[in-house]
Amino acid sequence: MLEIHVLNGPNLNLLGRREPAVYGHETLADIEARLRAKAEAEGVALTFLQTNDEGALVSAVQEAGLKGAGVVINAGAYTHTSIALRDAIAGSGALAVEIHLSNVHARESFRHHSMIAPVCKGVIAGFGAASYTLGFDACLSALRARPDAAARP
Amino acid sequence: MLEIHVLNGPNLNLLGRREPAVYGHETLADIEARLRAKAEAEGVALTFLQTNDEGALVSAVQEAGLKGAGVVINAGAYTHTSIALRDAIAGSGALAVEIHLSNVHARESFRHHSMIAPVCKGVIAGFGAASYTLGFDACLSALRARPDAAARP
Amino acid sequence: MLEIHVLNGPNLNLLGRREPAVYGHETLADIEARLRAKAEAEGVALTFLQTNDEGALVSAVQEAGLKGAGVVINAGAYTHTSIALRDAIAGSGALAVEIHLSNVHARESFRHHSMIAPVCKGVIAGFGAASYTLGFDACLSALRARPDAAARP
Amino acid sequence: MLEIHVLNGPNLNLLGRREPAVYGHETLADIEARLRAKAEAEGVALTFLQTNDEGALVSAVQEAGLKGAGVVINAGAYTHTSIALRDAIAGSGALAVEIHLSNVHARESFRHHSMIAPVCKGVIAGFGAASYTLGFDACLSALRARPDAAARP
Amino acid sequence: MLEIHVLNGPNLNLLGRREPAVYGHETLADIEARLRAKAEAEGVALTFLQTNDEGALVSAVQEAGLKGAGVVINAGAYTHTSIALRDAIAGSGALAVEIHLSNVHARESFRHHSMIAPVCKGVIAGFGAASYTLGFDACLSALRARPDAAARP
Amino acid sequence: MLEIHVLNGPNLNLLGRREPAVYGHETLADIEARLRAKAEAEGVALTFLQTNDEGALVSAVQEAGLKGAGVVINAGAYTHTSIALRDAIAGSGALAVEIHLSNVHARESFRHHSMIAPVCKGVIAGFGAASYTLGFDACLSALRARPDAAARP
Amino acid sequence: MLEIHVLNGPNLNLLGRREPAVYGHETLADIEARLRAKAEAEGVALTFLQTNDEGALVSAVQEAGLKGAGVVINAGAYTHTSIALRDAIAGSGALAVEIHLSNVHARESFRHHSMIAPVCKGVIAGFGAASYTLGFDACLSALRARPDAAARP
Amino acid sequence: MLEIHVLNGPNLNLLGRREPAVYGHETLADIEARLRAKAEAEGVALTFLQTNDEGALVSAVQEAGLKGAGVVINAGAYTHTSIALRDAIAGSGALAVEIHLSNVHARESFRHHSMIAPVCKGVIAGFGAASYTLGFDACLSALRARPDAAARP
Amino acid sequence: MLEIHVLNGPNLNLLGRREPAVYGHETLADIEARLRAKAEAEGVALTFLQTNDEGALVSAVQEAGLKGAGVVINAGAYTHTSIALRDAIAGSGALAVEIHLSNVHARESFRHHSMIAPVCKGVIAGFGAASYTLGFDACLSALRARPDAAARP
Amino acid sequence: MLEIHVLNGPNLNLLGRREPAVYGHETLADIEARLRAKAEAEGVALTFLQTNDEGALVSAVQEAGLKGAGVVINAGAYTHTSIALRDAIAGSGALAVEIHLSNVHARESFRHHSMIAPVCKGVIAGFGAASYTLGFDACLSALRARPDAAARP
Amino acid sequence: MLEIHVLNGPNLNLLGRREPAVYGHETLADIEARLRAKAEAEGVALTFLQTNDEGALVSAVQEAGLKGAGVVINAGAYTHTSIALRDAIAGSGALAVEIHLSNVHARESFRHHSMIAPVCKGVIAGFGAASYTLGFDACLSALRARPDAAARP
Amino acid sequence: MLEIHVLNGPNLNLLGRREPAVYGHETLADIEARLRAKAEAEGVALTFLQTNDEGALVSAVQEAGLKGAGVVINAGAYTHTSIALRDAIAGSGALAVEIHLSNVHARESFRHHSMIAPVCKGVIAGFGAASYTLGFDACLSALRARPDAAARP
Repeated sequence: MLEIHVLNGPNLNLLGRREPAVYGHETLADIEARLRAKAEAEGVALTFLQTNDEGALVSAVQEAGLKGAGVVINAGAYTHTSIALRDAIAGSGALAVEIHLSNVHARESFRHHSMIAPVCKGVIAGFGAASYTLGFDACLSALRARPDAAARP
Repeated sequence: MLEIHVLNGPNLNLLGRREPAVYGHETLADIEARLRAKAEAEGVALTFLQTNDEGALVSAVQEAGLKGAGVVINAGAYTHTSIALRDAIAGSGALAVEIHLSNVHARESFRHHSMIAPVCKGVIAGFGAASYTLGFDACLSALRARPDAAARP
Repeated sequence: MLEIHVLNGPNLNLLGRREPAVYGHETLADIEARLRAKAEAEGVALTFLQTNDEGALVSAVQEAGLKGAGVVINAGAYTHTSIALRDAIAGSGALAVEIHLSNVHARESFRHHSMIAPVCKGVIAGFGAASYTLGFDACLSALRARPDAAARP
Repeated sequence: MLEIHVLNGPNLNLLGRREPAVYGHETLADIEARLRAKAEAEGVALTFLQTNDEGALVSAVQEAGLKGAGVVINAGAYTHTSIALRDAIAGSGALAVEIHLSNVHARESFRHHSMIAPVCKGVIAGFGAASYTLGFDACLSALRARPDAAARP
Repeated sequence: MLEIHVLNGPNLNLLGRREPAVYGHETLADIEARLRAKAEAEGVALTFLQTNDEGALVSAVQEAGLKGAGVVINAGAYTHTSIALRDAIAGSGALAVEIHLSNVHARESFRHHSMIAPVCKGVIAGFGAASYTLGFDACLSALRARPDAAARP
Repeated sequence: MLEIHVLNGPNLNLLGRREPAVYGHETLADIEARLRAKAEAEGVALTFLQTNDEGALVSAVQEAGLKGAGVVINAGAYTHTSIALRDAIAGSGALAVEIHLSNVHARESFRHHSMIAPVCKGVIAGFGAASYTLGFDACLSALRARPDAAARP
Repeated sequence: MLEIHVLNGPNLNLLGRREPAVYGHETLADIEARLRAKAEAEGVALTFLQTNDEGALVSAVQEAGLKGAGVVINAGAYTHTSIALRDAIAGSGALAVEIHLSNVHARESFRHHSMIAPVCKGVIAGFGAASYTLGFDACLSALRARPDAAARP
Repeated sequence: MLEIHVLNGPNLNLLGRREPAVYGHETLADIEARLRAKAEAEGVALTFLQTNDEGALVSAVQEAGLKGAGVVINAGAYTHTSIALRDAIAGSGALAVEIHLSNVHARESFRHHSMIAPVCKGVIAGFGAASYTLGFDACLSALRARPDAAARP
Repeated sequence: MLEIHVLNGPNLNLLGRREPAVYGHETLADIEARLRAKAEAEGVALTFLQTNDEGALVSAVQEAGLKGAGVVINAGAYTHTSIALRDAIAGSGALAVEIHLSNVHARESFRHHSMIAPVCKGVIAGFGAASYTLGFDACLSALRARPDAAARP
Repeated sequence: MLEIHVLNGPNLNLLGRREPAVYGHETLADIEARLRAKAEAEGVALTFLQTNDEGALVSAVQEAGLKGAGVVINAGAYTHTSIALRDAIAGSGALAVEIHLSNVHARESFRHHSMIAPVCKGVIAGFGAASYTLGFDACLSALRARPDAAARP
Repeated sequence: MLEIHVLNGPNLNLLGRREPAVYGHETLADIEARLRAKAEAEGVALTFLQTNDEGALVSAVQEAGLKGAGVVINAGAYTHTSIALRDAIAGSGALAVEIHLSNVHARESFRHHSMIAPVCKGVIAGFGAASYTLGFDACLSALRARPDAAARP
Repeated sequence: MLEIHVLNGPNLNLLGRREPAVYGHETLADIEARLRAKAEAEGVALTFLQTNDEGALVSAVQEAGLKGAGVVINAGAYTHTSIALRDAIAGSGALAVEIHLSNVHARESFRHHSMIAPVCKGVIAGFGAASYTLGFDACLSALRARPDAAARP
């Protein structure tokens, strides 16, 4: 059975509580619920996690990558600065999709650069909560296309 | 009836002919066919176009934007340098989704910056031909969520 | 009889249709009409042209420069990136005046630099449609002050 | 009665005395005379001033701005470095037109950037003494177009 | 008796007259009055000065520094560019506190750097008129903590 | 009853133990004691916290911000690099005052830039332990001036 | 029979008409004539083309590359900015030699960098019209050294 | 008895599991075993620790530094970005040796700069697992050369 | 009779009063006295001036330059930022020698660049008060070598 | 009789011994032999030299330039850093052609810039050993076109 | 028998004579003696050389590399600028270890970058004379681990 | 007896032979003769040397510095790039005066920065051959002012 870990970085727990003009009104729980339904429909095991801690996010990526799970990651602020996350993705061999709620390229310039994008499969940004479902779809279809897809546990 | 214009910039006519390691084996015609099927299923009018010419791409964006169509745009090399394209998107009010076949962030540094992303709804990159279908989905659902969606012709 | 070519670059055909807060309500046709009246009053032959195409703009500058016409050019987005336009002005010996509707220095930083200004006679920016009439005046008086003004056809 | 203050910064008192190849043969007094005639014809009260002192220029801008006068300013060298002038224009609400005798973009790179342009209505550069008359025209017509033009003393 | 000189740079005379959204409604006279009361209560001799002139500000800093007075300085625009002010503080041995009404770090990037901060005791910015009273307190307590506080005239 | 959370970042637990030339001899416990006395006198509820962990600091800011408490934050090294802290302040709506013991502008250049200053109310740096009391004062008076000060719990 | 396409970018049609101090007196037709003689002597099919249009140049490169022809390209101003040309050369597998009439390294700094050089076989610059004949020689001998030279049509 | 703390940052727990081409086949446990043998032979107390968490690494450095232990630190990704680690080393007075498995200078440019090197005794990089033993030797001999080596507990 | 104007910028009035380690113990009056003796011996008319004001320095340079006097200028802090001074030297045709007491290249990096050096005859820095006498010698011998030396008043 | 000096910088003595993928299999002796044959056929006196020493290369350029010989120079690593070589070419008036075996623009970025190109006649790079023969041809024809070609010894 | 060449660049002959605070009291002869003892013990042939000349250092590296010797190189100032040394190491296939007496990262910023590190096996810096013995150990063990270690002469 | 070594770097042997517009007509031998006369008059032992070789210049500086001689150095092109020269001056404790014939600040930007100025006593540039005599005077008077001047051999 395929596995996808949806990992959320710092401040995403605030989602839907403040700055709705930038991030929309949905909470992270709403998004998790929608993804759980989707995962069930697709027969995929879903792990969903949020943390404000860079080290915890690194460990979560490692765990996912080492067991062959796909990763949909909204690393929030750590996207732009964390070499540790980048090394975790590359070092654990994770098939990762980087996502963002907002269009980071339309915001401050320090949000235009991603430390993790070069080691991810691809990037999806700007579609609000829909970035998660698009990211899930993209990740799932990449997992299924993986040469060793069938042989994985 | 909603309309989506899928616009392709320079060298995308080479797709599937060379450098399959970077861009895959599918041709642009394959992609167009797949999108036409999808558009038909969704009841969306599809325009599909490729040009090597920056000015022609500007005109195509203007035309789409002014009539309220959604735009899924793979501007290729012009993504990184064309202020004219940016102005066409912003100036015509086009709801645009920027897509790329490859993960531009894993390539040369001059491909990391997009001139058009800040005026697009969002960005999708790195999923090969699937970037087009994800982009179509993202664009369509954004079109449907537009406040004046119903009132448009 | 003196000749002035007023050349307009990409997206200026949108003038008056969108973003009036930035560019005002007048259309390019309105501006052309006003300049035609002025040209007639001054006894100047006027050519007025808009194109989204960098190559076409280069050719138009060459043509104007080679026949000794003055050039009033609003190169739009190409102002900031086109070395080809710069070479066309310098290479054809055109007496050119760079104009802009908006105050480019009050906008995004990539609009602060002009590739063509160093080979133009001067620059006028920020006065809306009036930039065209000021530019026409400036160009005409520079043409008349040209050492060989009398001898030109 | 509308008022325009024409303010000149450092070294403009040298005008016509040296470097005629760059700045022409007219003196500042010649320019003042020409503008006085123009102002009289237009029914505009003209103030004309030159100073080598940044602080004095700041005070002159403040005075003009606070009384609702238009400002035509050739700030000379201070154009490129003076945040104080910028603050004076913005802080006093002056409607200002930045002018230059020479085409600053064709000279040393440190003359390409203007600290005051972003808070001015627009910029005119490169037409020698004619930059002053064009600047006067541009300023006057902007003053007349000001929503509260009629209500001002 | 301890002395504090409160020195104000360019455009601070405009305070309370324009841009209240950025700088508040209090005038510089209001601030001076409040500080005079405070100084009297603390038994401190207060000098309060505003000038648009960099040279005058340099001289005022020298005078304060050479007589052992504390300096609370809102150098306005000169904060960001004046090496002369920096040299005056360092060269006269002034114990100086840099203050700003607005939060300079939340404004244009050219206001993020201070030429004088490295030779000041400290910096206070963003609290409107309260920056002056906080600055006065900080300066006074640093003066009192000076090893030679007692021995000074 | 108003609340202020004083939050301390990495290495501030070393205060008073090493490098007294830079940071003084007082320990963080000394500072806490002084602030507790001040808070009691002002009738303010005080929370005082130190952590070496960026994630924990983010969570502490969120908690303070969401309950309407003021924040006095000495983020130490994270000041200069943490986008996550910035997002926590902005995302939780915290009224925050950034403080530093030392004059960061007189130290290494990487300490001159603050990631969090633009979303803080203001900044106070360079006054040693007094930066805390000045920051407390500044924060308290800003809390009291908040339009909804009365209505908050 | 081996094929070489000699492709010329913007403003090269002006050759010999203006700025002879920089570019010499020969026209592009003179150069074409000389190359045609050379090609005939070598038994090489020659295509010779000039366009001011970036898109047309991209298409011409594609066509040459896809049919296995060698390319001698003087891309003029597009040399320094066109990622599209670079992608056309790499994407079509063209064996290309970049040439310039003038020594670009002795001119403005924006002419020192070439976007296409990294995907060309080599570069020749500074020898006036002789750059074309040297480029032809270099291209021809590289074509003949191509492993599959014999097998090509 | 002298003490050495060998501290490992993020992703070093993956050692020997993935990317052996870059990092070799040995695991961190293998390295620890080898160092324990060496420490025993030298009569040195060894602490060996790995964490993905920046804050935990800061605390570990503080603890080692404050008790006078030597530090051999492979900070992994935090090497390049952590001012907090730098402050922990300097603030606790730790005698630290920075080590890396790979030759960081032969990898991505963001790995060329170290935030902690300037406050370390020295740097050793590129020798795989041998970097640890060389680092241990270097640290031990520096500890023994410390003026107060004998007097430390 | 030849004339030399020795012009001193901001803070040079502090000379000998503070920071003797950087600038020595001599006062500006000492230096003036020494130069007066030298001038008398050489039969040169000497003007000696100090001002903290950029505008006054500009005017002094203009006056010297327009009357054909040589200029020995220690512009202090304005050396590094004043385009106005540069324009005054170039615009008045002054033969100027830039001098500095200290070796500016051994100090902060913002003192390494001179705005006025490119329009001066030469530069002398680092020899304390001797920089003035060396500068006087250099200026005088350049004045005497001036083609029109004899013809000047 | 015309003279050409072919000068080779550091590490070119390794040619053909290592890294054939980058530099080909020919040795420098092979290249010299080919050029000697060519020179004899053309009636040109050939000097051929290799040195690892910057100073020796400078002297060799001087010698060639002062006697009016043409210079074909592959300065190797010194190409990118040697101002001394640049001065030698300019100072001795040498007619020089810069050549490279490899396409330097397709290698590390520090090889993209040439210190000597601006003072050379032109540049040829990327054609392996053929760069030498192309360079010889280019140099010889430029020598013959020199206005004073006939008059030289 | 394995060979190691210890190569020293400019100014290392001054070692122990001046600046002992930076470089210690040992002379280069002391270091050589210690290494000779070590080499004898290990059965390694040692070459030890110092030169102030970049070209001589290049030649020495070539010689060592071509004969399969290991290289321990303290290139001094050339470390930071010499592309020629880099090419010599890469071009001769030398297994090189870069060493420094001082911690270059704690000194001026131009000493932070090494041109040769990317082509070396690894880097050791900051341990004074011990850097040589650590470098010798590292080099020797890398030589012994070389796949073809046994087969080499 | 005091000693002064006048050291000349690359291409200064060309002096007076070419580019007189930049460097004047005097040869280096003329300059040496003039300095020898001056040295004799002052009772100073003079060494005068020119070399194109960086290593030789480094050795010459070391020799002069170690014996306590003053150094007047025109390092030519090496001024701008040679860290080795800088280290030789600092490492040998030489009292050095940097001189230039031309005003380096009025030439290409790469000549504006000096690697050696920060370790020299001072800098003199722009006075042609007179830079040597001014430099000799400056060096001699600094030697005489050296605390240990009398005690030196």
